[in-house]
Amino acid sequence: MTVRVRVTSPASLSNLGPGFDILGLALADPADTVEAEASDRPGVEIVDVTGDEGLLSRDPRQNVAGVAAADVLARAARTSGVAPAATGLRLWLTKGIPIASGLGGSAASSVAGAVAANEVLGRPFAPLELVESALAGEAVAAISAHGDNVLPCLLGGIVLVRSLAPLDVVSLPVPPGLHLAVVHPHCQVPTSEARALLKDLRWNLSDAVANAANVGSFVSALHTGDLQLLGRSVADRLVEPVRARLIPGFDRVKAAAQASGALACSISGSGPTVFAFACDERSARRAAAAMEQAFADAAGLASDVYVGQVNTQGTRSIRHVRSGTRAGL
Amino acid sequence: MTVRVRVTSPASLSNLGPGFDILGLALADPADTVEAEASDRPGVEIVDVTGDEGLLSRDPRQNVAGVAAADVLARAARTSGVAPAATGLRLWLTKGIPIASGLGGSAASSVAGAVAANEVLGRPFAPLELVESALAGEAVAAISAHGDNVLPCLLGGIVLVRSLAPLDVVSLPVPPGLHLAVVHPHCQVPTSEARALLKDLRWNLSDAVANAANVGSFVSALHTGDLQLLGRSVADRLVEPVRARLIPGFDRVKAAAQASGALACSISGSGPTVFAFACDERSARRAAAAMEQAFADAAGLASDVYVGQVNTQGTRSIRHVRSGTRAGL
Repeated sequence: MTVRVRVTSPASLSNLGPGFDILGLALADPADTVEAEASDRPGVEIVDVTGDEGLLSRDPRQNVAGVAAADVLARAARTSGVAPAATGLRLWLTKGIPIASGLGGSAASSVAGAVAANEVLGRPFAPLELVESALAGEAVAAISAHGDNVLPCLLGGIVLVRSLAPLDVVSLPVPPGLHLAVVHPHCQVPTSEARALLKDLRWNLSDAVANAANVGSFVSALHTGDLQLLGRSVADRLVEPVRARLIPGFDRVKAAAQASGALACSISGSGPTVFAFACDERSARRAAAAMEQAFADAAGLASDVYVGQVNTQGTRSIRHVRSGTRAGL
Repeated sequence: MTVRVRVTSPASLSNLGPGFDILGLALADPADTVEAEASDRPGVEIVDVTGDEGLLSRDPRQNVAGVAAADVLARAARTSGVAPAATGLRLWLTKGIPIASGLGGSAASSVAGAVAANEVLGRPFAPLELVESALAGEAVAAISAHGDNVLPCLLGGIVLVRSLAPLDVVSLPVPPGLHLAVVHPHCQVPTSEARALLKDLRWNLSDAVANAANVGSFVSALHTGDLQLLGRSVADRLVEPVRARLIPGFDRVKAAAQASGALACSISGSGPTVFAFACDERSARRAAAAMEQAFADAAGLASDVYVGQVNTQGTRSIRHVRSGTRAGL
């Protein structure tokens, strides 16, 4: 008899306009899944990876889910006082989130790996204690630690990361009407390249002040449900102007979203995914169609499209008991 | 029979830690007062200024209250369609707010001048329409337009100025327990000098991001009443480190506030006034005493001290009818 846990970690939007490195929200889909079982062999083994088009490493030291899981395993052995329920883990990773899309795929796999390990080990850690392991996973993908994908992916909802060290996270209310249109055009913007563009730039104080004001009004709008204010607050004078250049057709896509009646439009993470906020499902569908069409017209790009609400559940795990031998796993 | 209006405009704290140029709150006291009457003589006449130790100009074109009132008068003549109730104004200004203290004294006199003119003219403008006239007044004091003093002074409460042009202002909730300790040491930090220090500086993205995060958590804390989070959010990596140098003993004053149990401590505006947030009146009194003592010990400075809650009323006006002649006014 074998217990297997299945952990589903959603895609997430980060930055959300003015909130570079500090604001993020969880999507209903797509999602990455990690299944895990205890193993007699110490350490982490990645049995299989599917849905990644062969792009990801099966070496657990090079795979974000493997690294996050190994970090949980090592910390449990080091800190729990009692021996953890297992010394080894076998993992199966299924990528549902496109790679290098700006949808927080590395964060999702990392979170799923960390949560799966924690479940198999009998939950030695509270959810927020898994953040450092998930960030250790993300680091393998050359993503520096910010948590604006990891936290919403883990907790669900809309999250403000006030500080990572010490960890200080604010879960923000989700207005009932808020809908999302998310469009992932089929082109690549490696996170490392998008971040390199920012590395040596220094901004004017006035731009920093404008972004801080928009973060403040964004947060207030979530608390009061003022979707018009929310829309006005999705304005980024720091990062979007730089990153927009890496996304073919971005200006036309944003204009199309705005013309369709969306509340706001910006880049998710380092792109190329672009999102819009809308006040109802119909408006979100209209915005998604307009943005998809604009990517096709302006840059000849096909896109994946997601329409829905904020996922307030975050990462979910299911334990199921499998009878029989482990053969074939 | 003469109608005289008496307008009281409170001092205000601006910046509030991370919110340089965008966050401010109104204090219960001190306050500036403008009294005004209609006059047959076109334009604005400043009859008297008291409480300023002779520092302020009586020339209405050089006095912030005079300029703000004149701006309202000119706009009313230009835009109202019907003739305004008066073509001239006589003003009496009483300064209760120390000059160049960081307590928004110029903003208070400007707001009082604008509101008084509007009252005498029969209220041609809604309160928010007076902001541009108040900012025109502040400009005379070489204060560039930000509104982080003018808006809380006018509206009361805690205000986020998302944008000045177009005007987009968010009134934030005031947690019931929140108390303030405000200490104004007797030294001068001219606003223009404090701002000149900032003019050519450019900040790292990480500092801008940290400040934006703190503005976001500050706003969320006001909505949820989480005073501990509010306290952690009063952290400024942009401006406080630069301006602290202009305030003798600041580091020891801040340390004294924190040691006394205050939630947070920072500089108001360009200083030298320093404020602390506290979770009740007793704690605010303790913080005020500790800060006052630290200014004395560290820099040999005497201070004015104010302890109280946020003033949610803002600028108040009273009309009263005086019988008899105008002789003696």
